[in-house]
Amino acid sequence: MIPRYTRPEMAAIWSPETKFRIWFEIEAHAADKMAELGVIPAEAARVIWEKGGEAVFDVARIDAIEREVKHDVIAFLTHLAEIVGPEARFVHQGMTSSDVLDTCLSVQLARAADLLLAGIDRVRAALRKRAFEHKATLCVGRSHGIHAEPTTFGLKLASHYAEFSRARRRLEAARAEIAVCAISGAVGTFATVDPAVEAHVAEKLGLAVEPVSTQVIPRDRHAVFFAALGVIASSVERLAVEIRHLQRTEVLEAEEPFTEGQKGSSAMPHKRNPVLTENLTGLARLVRMCVIPAMENVALWHERDISHSSVERGIGPDATAHLDFALHRLAGIVENLVVYPERMQENLDRLGGLVHSQKVLLALTQAGLAREEAYRRVQRNAMAAWRGEGEFLANLKADKDVTDRLPPERLAALFDVGVSLRHVDTIFARVFDGA
Amino acid sequence: MIPRYTRPEMAAIWSPETKFRIWFEIEAHAADKMAELGVIPAEAARVIWEKGGEAVFDVARIDAIEREVKHDVIAFLTHLAEIVGPEARFVHQGMTSSDVLDTCLSVQLARAADLLLAGIDRVRAALRKRAFEHKATLCVGRSHGIHAEPTTFGLKLASHYAEFSRARRRLEAARAEIAVCAISGAVGTFATVDPAVEAHVAEKLGLAVEPVSTQVIPRDRHAVFFAALGVIASSVERLAVEIRHLQRTEVLEAEEPFTEGQKGSSAMPHKRNPVLTENLTGLARLVRMCVIPAMENVALWHERDISHSSVERGIGPDATAHLDFALHRLAGIVENLVVYPERMQENLDRLGGLVHSQKVLLALTQAGLAREEAYRRVQRNAMAAWRGEGEFLANLKADKDVTDRLPPERLAALFDVGVSLRHVDTIFARVFDGA
Amino acid sequence: MIPRYTRPEMAAIWSPETKFRIWFEIEAHAADKMAELGVIPAEAARVIWEKGGEAVFDVARIDAIEREVKHDVIAFLTHLAEIVGPEARFVHQGMTSSDVLDTCLSVQLARAADLLLAGIDRVRAALRKRAFEHKATLCVGRSHGIHAEPTTFGLKLASHYAEFSRARRRLEAARAEIAVCAISGAVGTFATVDPAVEAHVAEKLGLAVEPVSTQVIPRDRHAVFFAALGVIASSVERLAVEIRHLQRTEVLEAEEPFTEGQKGSSAMPHKRNPVLTENLTGLARLVRMCVIPAMENVALWHERDISHSSVERGIGPDATAHLDFALHRLAGIVENLVVYPERMQENLDRLGGLVHSQKVLLALTQAGLAREEAYRRVQRNAMAAWRGEGEFLANLKADKDVTDRLPPERLAALFDVGVSLRHVDTIFARVFDGA
Amino acid sequence: MIPRYTRPEMAAIWSPETKFRIWFEIEAHAADKMAELGVIPAEAARVIWEKGGEAVFDVARIDAIEREVKHDVIAFLTHLAEIVGPEARFVHQGMTSSDVLDTCLSVQLARAADLLLAGIDRVRAALRKRAFEHKATLCVGRSHGIHAEPTTFGLKLASHYAEFSRARRRLEAARAEIAVCAISGAVGTFATVDPAVEAHVAEKLGLAVEPVSTQVIPRDRHAVFFAALGVIASSVERLAVEIRHLQRTEVLEAEEPFTEGQKGSSAMPHKRNPVLTENLTGLARLVRMCVIPAMENVALWHERDISHSSVERGIGPDATAHLDFALHRLAGIVENLVVYPERMQENLDRLGGLVHSQKVLLALTQAGLAREEAYRRVQRNAMAAWRGEGEFLANLKADKDVTDRLPPERLAALFDVGVSLRHVDTIFARVFDGA
Repeated sequence: MIPRYTRPEMAAIWSPETKFRIWFEIEAHAADKMAELGVIPAEAARVIWEKGGEAVFDVARIDAIEREVKHDVIAFLTHLAEIVGPEARFVHQGMTSSDVLDTCLSVQLARAADLLLAGIDRVRAALRKRAFEHKATLCVGRSHGIHAEPTTFGLKLASHYAEFSRARRRLEAARAEIAVCAISGAVGTFATVDPAVEAHVAEKLGLAVEPVSTQVIPRDRHAVFFAALGVIASSVERLAVEIRHLQRTEVLEAEEPFTEGQKGSSAMPHKRNPVLTENLTGLARLVRMCVIPAMENVALWHERDISHSSVERGIGPDATAHLDFALHRLAGIVENLVVYPERMQENLDRLGGLVHSQKVLLALTQAGLAREEAYRRVQRNAMAAWRGEGEFLANLKADKDVTDRLPPERLAALFDVGVSLRHVDTIFARVFDGA
Repeated sequence: MIPRYTRPEMAAIWSPETKFRIWFEIEAHAADKMAELGVIPAEAARVIWEKGGEAVFDVARIDAIEREVKHDVIAFLTHLAEIVGPEARFVHQGMTSSDVLDTCLSVQLARAADLLLAGIDRVRAALRKRAFEHKATLCVGRSHGIHAEPTTFGLKLASHYAEFSRARRRLEAARAEIAVCAISGAVGTFATVDPAVEAHVAEKLGLAVEPVSTQVIPRDRHAVFFAALGVIASSVERLAVEIRHLQRTEVLEAEEPFTEGQKGSSAMPHKRNPVLTENLTGLARLVRMCVIPAMENVALWHERDISHSSVERGIGPDATAHLDFALHRLAGIVENLVVYPERMQENLDRLGGLVHSQKVLLALTQAGLAREEAYRRVQRNAMAAWRGEGEFLANLKADKDVTDRLPPERLAALFDVGVSLRHVDTIFARVFDGA
Repeated sequence: MIPRYTRPEMAAIWSPETKFRIWFEIEAHAADKMAELGVIPAEAARVIWEKGGEAVFDVARIDAIEREVKHDVIAFLTHLAEIVGPEARFVHQGMTSSDVLDTCLSVQLARAADLLLAGIDRVRAALRKRAFEHKATLCVGRSHGIHAEPTTFGLKLASHYAEFSRARRRLEAARAEIAVCAISGAVGTFATVDPAVEAHVAEKLGLAVEPVSTQVIPRDRHAVFFAALGVIASSVERLAVEIRHLQRTEVLEAEEPFTEGQKGSSAMPHKRNPVLTENLTGLARLVRMCVIPAMENVALWHERDISHSSVERGIGPDATAHLDFALHRLAGIVENLVVYPERMQENLDRLGGLVHSQKVLLALTQAGLAREEAYRRVQRNAMAAWRGEGEFLANLKADKDVTDRLPPERLAALFDVGVSLRHVDTIFARVFDGA
Repeated sequence: MIPRYTRPEMAAIWSPETKFRIWFEIEAHAADKMAELGVIPAEAARVIWEKGGEAVFDVARIDAIEREVKHDVIAFLTHLAEIVGPEARFVHQGMTSSDVLDTCLSVQLARAADLLLAGIDRVRAALRKRAFEHKATLCVGRSHGIHAEPTTFGLKLASHYAEFSRARRRLEAARAEIAVCAISGAVGTFATVDPAVEAHVAEKLGLAVEPVSTQVIPRDRHAVFFAALGVIASSVERLAVEIRHLQRTEVLEAEEPFTEGQKGSSAMPHKRNPVLTENLTGLARLVRMCVIPAMENVALWHERDISHSSVERGIGPDATAHLDFALHRLAGIVENLVVYPERMQENLDRLGGLVHSQKVLLALTQAGLAREEAYRRVQRNAMAAWRGEGEFLANLKADKDVTDRLPPERLAALFDVGVSLRHVDTIFARVFDGA
């Protein structure tokens, strides 16, 4: 987790304090069920909760023990024994470290997913608001960076809204993939722990039961989770790149919010750079890079090896924290994006109506011309306008090969932008009512 | 698509013939609806189906046209006009190339997903059959490659079955992501085509309607699809690696089927190498490598750029074909895997009962010892056995610090493998009845 | 290899015919040395060359044999025996399949590298020519997409030239990494083949000897090779993205060559899209995706497993072919790039001199102002100009806080673009004379 | 940087204190040259060194300023001005932030490379020592995990030594790629700073001059650097996987060092798990994942965008720190690896001489049999031995089809392992004298 790209809420999920607290809860809930099953004394379970429930686990002390025993869970259990006293021998009965570690990771990833879902919702809310605000704000649609046909700025945002609505559904599914509990012993056979313990802990922690584990929760689940984050990061990037393009000097249809006191450049005082969205572009790469190692983690040897662990110590906090930060940064940008409708109109008018060429083409074919022939006649006049030789509409009106099929007034009507945008309401209904 | 790793069924989906046939169907279905809307003559739609419906599109001819016009859809439409005649001018009315290309890709990916689902089901069926066959076949469970505790070979397979059942659900979801149709014109505004056309084509092709497109179907959908393939490939790899390990000379608990006439090595005639599962390991890398470019494709510029296209020409066929091949290769291996239960038992017995050490540890703590102390007493005897100094059980029986807590007969009972595996039925029920 | 992105020269390197020809040469050269060492009869070596040297190997026949024996080298040797006759039993004496396969791959990769080097040189030649042509063509330099300070178009190209010169050196180094020969037998010990055979074959094929092999040539060599291709592809992408930006409607400082007959859009006849450079952007992703699997191939098990093989059947041809195609496409674009110097000047003038703000800032600090204070005074006037309130120079001249430090004529001199570009010759000398 | 996988020496390179110290040195060296050129007063340069040279930069203060101005270099310069006083206005004259940031990153990466080179050398020294120690320690070579032919443990290590020698050369080359200085102003034109300043700073910092920069040092250099780290990490993984395999219960030819007090498992006290090498396997994934984002960073927009920055804040420290840690962990493992030569011999003998089959095959062909026929006769006897039907040599001696070509004493001689290993000295000379 790069601190400057991490919000405190997410950092807290990955702190050692949180981790040890979750470990404790897993052990203590398990003890409850074991006591109920008669495996350990009921008194032991009570003492564990009593002493451990209010304890502040000493991270430095646990680290010191780990340096000796070279095993993190044993270090924690040793420290817990220092707190709980003799009853501590009933903790972790028949369990294996992974029962604790993997279930804890599930809890952390599920909580991280909840934060991310909130981040997505903030982005969606901002997009929805701005989309409706600019539903009728005309601008040019560009394919290949080249002016194509008119659209509205609200429609652009609606497209991103729909994408983040998909992101939400994907993340919900990904959360369900990893929100599982496994307490099944050394090779997943429940040889030394009753399946009822697993069921109890799962219920208490809001997790599902892993149907079959092999000491570890299978890593295909985590791979799916990180893949979902990678796709969402790519959706963040798409919107970031759109804004970067719109802020280019020659385009300047929108600008990132720029606060008082902020400096764009140490050298060039006039500059207002889209550094936030450029930053999001980089953060997308950082999140996406976690996908492949998560997939490489799947093929553990036999019932498990521990190669996944160091990977997850990295990508677990990193991918969730950086995506979380990116979502909130993006939401802030969208909420406060400075939009220049006049400039949008100016750019739209820039090609003098060339953006309506397809409608002319269609009208010519409907007036009886073969498509190829219609294409040639339109392109001829379009290219002339493109080269600065006359306005497109004027050129068309002066071209007998065109006007013998389409009278001037019919041509003019084809240049009405309202015609182009008559289905915007339909699309908005599909996006915002259907989502 | 590497031919040797491609099944003909999948190759057919990606052939130019199939592609042009789908293009035609999109255009012809669209024409039907346009005729119904009165945009083109009903007769035109009829002729398009009549002439094009039975036509064999000349791939070489289309390629030749494309070399001139440098545009694949225009090349196809030009060829179609050669077949359909003058009515061809009513084809593609108000549509843009991407309407055809993207919807076609959706159809191809959906068909590919159907083949992959069948492949997964074949793997699942094989795993289920062999899992029940070996439900009680004892073998050692290994963590870190080191003997841990007893399990059964059926339980190993059940774990993979559960993973492929998850794979199935993920692929179904991924299929739904990409099974969408967009016919929305140059920048997705329906400026020149009625939304009803899109709805009609979608229905005819078994697709959902893309709520908002921007000339193209947004690429987050495809990213999710390829990510799902990457995870499934990783699951293939996990099972492949398991089999490779089991076939190692020193382990030899199972072997890939080896056909008559097959040669293991040009140099060493005694060798039977797990080359099929090694191959699957490599194929997993080939599929997985398609994930990141699919994510890089998401952030297209404005309403679209075409950078995704060359990527998809590669990863579309490659990832689906190689995963499809891998699934069937894997299924064949599982169906015919040669299993050596005697060798499994032999390996299980190898450590002279050390695999039961955890049960001894537990019994000692339940007999009143602190966990740390119990651990030391067990490890002491285990390490001696490990070094070849006596059998583990004998050592324990000879250790007064152990026997003053656990009498010899109690110790012996702890070495009963039946105890370790009493929950196998439970797990099988969770996996096979719950899936 | 996607055919449309593969040049025939590169396809030929990866054809089965070429592969079998190289296999033959390895075997025949090896036989020569073995004959010299007295391991096989001199007559055998002679016959092998005589019969095999002019043979056309029957790919279909070899494939048919392979389907039976499931081993490609044995299939080839069997076919070779059909051609050579009884002396064939002296072929491949004491060698292992990998001796042939890996050495052949080295030859193919080295030949591919030679083609790629030629492609890089074509790009470099084009960049050099156009860089000198536009050495003094003024244009605006942009950071963050925002106008920064003046530069020249030639300088832009010089930067790319320098990058491709680095690419060349990297590829030469990468070529040396994989241009190695290994003929060392089953586990690399030369148990059954003399090291002199390896040395002889290496010399004949223009390869270095692998100092220590383990049946296979170690795959870190190949990983480095593919990583080099990935970086070069990224350099292709950088130039492609530059051109895409320059061709944007609002910028339009340069355009990809557009041939007669080419169609930009099936729908919008006026469009001239940068589809070639967008294509290069996609091809870069396709090449880059080969890097990680090549690295995953390194950690083979023990003396070797064959998981790398399927990967290399994909990435070997794909990465080299697509990069080769990309380099030539890029070279063609640069050679024929349409440049619009007037438009460059127009864009440069767009901000009315804001691009000179840093020189004003500097002059103010040198005139005694603290940097912070100077910054504020410049930014104030720059921001007004940016908002359309007056021209920047006029604003400065009207600002007493500025003019009390810098008299108007001094201010005007700071707006001379020649000052900004006085070191262009120096940079050109560093790039083109030093490379 | 995950703290548990980061050595303090590497952490220090990436600390804010180190960064600000390097920034200062860049500014102060630049001031020296500017003073010499008469651009700023000589006194200013002197005061900058005097006040700043001994200052401890207040990281918290700089962070506080940055939160306001949202620009890290401006924040540092503001803080520096607080320390240096009025002369601070002569700092950073005509420079741009990237001049400082990029040159600093070069220094940090070069220092990191030096640490990594030392780590590689420690690995190499350990490998060399253990390789000579076990030069004649017989063990079986395995291809596909299956016993192949005899080798020696020293030879295995020699192969890894050669690979790390290649790693060293690659890292030296990669270091040279990034050890460059750029001080060229806002768009790399030296509009406001003399090239002599750059040359001076470069010399003082031990860097080369970047021939042409565009505000930033081109990112293909960094991509190459991170790619080199990715390959080295993969080489670490190869050796780690070898050791993991050797430590498997059934193989047990070597073990990672296991310290007193260390615990293998919280549940199974007898276990000694190869957790260090499994950890290295995971760390390899963590390093490797930095390669693709570094390549994605290359294609910055025009003269630069800042998307690379967040990526580098992650991968710069992470990849270098984790690889550095991995190299030292690996070196420690190799230095103290517990090797079991008796077990190696035992495993070698396991197949009763099948590992010599290829020599029998060769002898038969040299005795006049066609290869195919010889293959059949050897395989027949090998397969019987494999199935437990007799010893391989005995089977051969009893097979008239064999003995009519090779008399029993000739057969026995073929089973001499010394023959197989007669070239070990040659290979050692190639590896250790040639490196």
